[in-house]
Amino acid sequence: MTEPSDKLPSLASIKRMPMYLRVLKRMSEGTDFASATKVAEELGLEPIVVRKDMELASVIGRPGVGYPIKDLIGGIENLLGWNNLSDAVLVGAGSLGTAILGYPGFANYGMNVVCAFDTDASKVGKTIHNKKVLALSKMAGLVERMHVQMGIITVPKEAAQEIADLMVAAGIRAIWNFTPVKLAVPEQVDVQNEDLAEGLAALSVKLTHKNKR
Amino acid sequence: MTEPSDKLPSLASIKRMPMYLRVLKRMSEGTDFASATKVAEELGLEPIVVRKDMELASVIGRPGVGYPIKDLIGGIENLLGWNNLSDAVLVGAGSLGTAILGYPGFANYGMNVVCAFDTDASKVGKTIHNKKVLALSKMAGLVERMHVQMGIITVPKEAAQEIADLMVAAGIRAIWNFTPVKLAVPEQVDVQNEDLAEGLAALSVKLTHKNKR
Repeated sequence: MTEPSDKLPSLASIKRMPMYLRVLKRMSEGTDFASATKVAEELGLEPIVVRKDMELASVIGRPGVGYPIKDLIGGIENLLGWNNLSDAVLVGAGSLGTAILGYPGFANYGMNVVCAFDTDASKVGKTIHNKKVLALSKMAGLVERMHVQMGIITVPKEAAQEIADLMVAAGIRAIWNFTPVKLAVPEQVDVQNEDLAEGLAALSVKLTHKNKR
Repeated sequence: MTEPSDKLPSLASIKRMPMYLRVLKRMSEGTDFASATKVAEELGLEPIVVRKDMELASVIGRPGVGYPIKDLIGGIENLLGWNNLSDAVLVGAGSLGTAILGYPGFANYGMNVVCAFDTDASKVGKTIHNKKVLALSKMAGLVERMHVQMGIITVPKEAAQEIADLMVAAGIRAIWNFTPVKLAVPEQVDVQNEDLAEGLAALSVKLTHKNKR
């Protein structure tokens, strides 16, 4: 084990971790060790990238043998905090909220969505993918009582800042924002923006570049 | 205007472009010029990052005045190919597909979703956010006839590779993949993966790191 550093690892490395977990869990069914070369090959990465990323999980590989897969999975889950479930609430039970509530395996990703909230009376009381939809007015109380740390925002963009304010006031410390709004939050609150336009930009520029050649 | 380079700009730069467009369009309502400093401030970026990104849009700023906003918007849209609409089809009209069909302003992002496809007979024939849902068996013919270049995959992960194969065979050149499956496609086909677990990893690691301090 190497000493865990106080510095946050690079975002690119962090974002590769779920992909490693998926490959390692699959490999663990047939074998106990995995080489960086094999993992790199499976994922179309350079072995040096995999080796550097694995260092972040504080697991040392054995030359000629590779990494003990179980330790590596544990190390990555520990790095991401996915060995402890974090409670989360979701606000906005429309089609995007529904899609996210139905996303398979959030529990594998360290997230336990406690319930969803909406202002639409026709949605309140329903159950979506086994999660209850409650009235938004109940959110603050529940978050405070259960010390929920994560909030997921899937409301129309006009309502996003208001929901973020409610979440922060209730004690939420990390917001997963699916609206294109740049949320204003206190410094100690983390925001992860999922902006669909970013992915589309990446794809369009490749397509455009190709069509010009 | 600088000469457009044959090299693809960095992914990080490309992904910032939609954000610039949103800010610039808002600023254009009150003024004709925007300084890199002002744009940087709005978005919480370093001015040098904004200046370098703006170079990619092939627009030169005037010292003390800034960039002509209209030219900059045009330059960015040209870079991303968003001044020409690309036709797209979506396969998988479940809650995620519905959320994506309802995503506001795809037309601003250069994408025209022609229609959606599904294998579920109860969905076929319906209209979701003004888009017709057709039987999957009609996809190949429509893509070929209309020379559709983009495909969006929002099916359950078990079906993802099969849909990608159908898309590629029909002539699709760019795939926006919302499943966690690593698709096998020919080299000339671009794939943009939207993996929800990536964003969640980024957020959890920050939260975990904070809780440990």
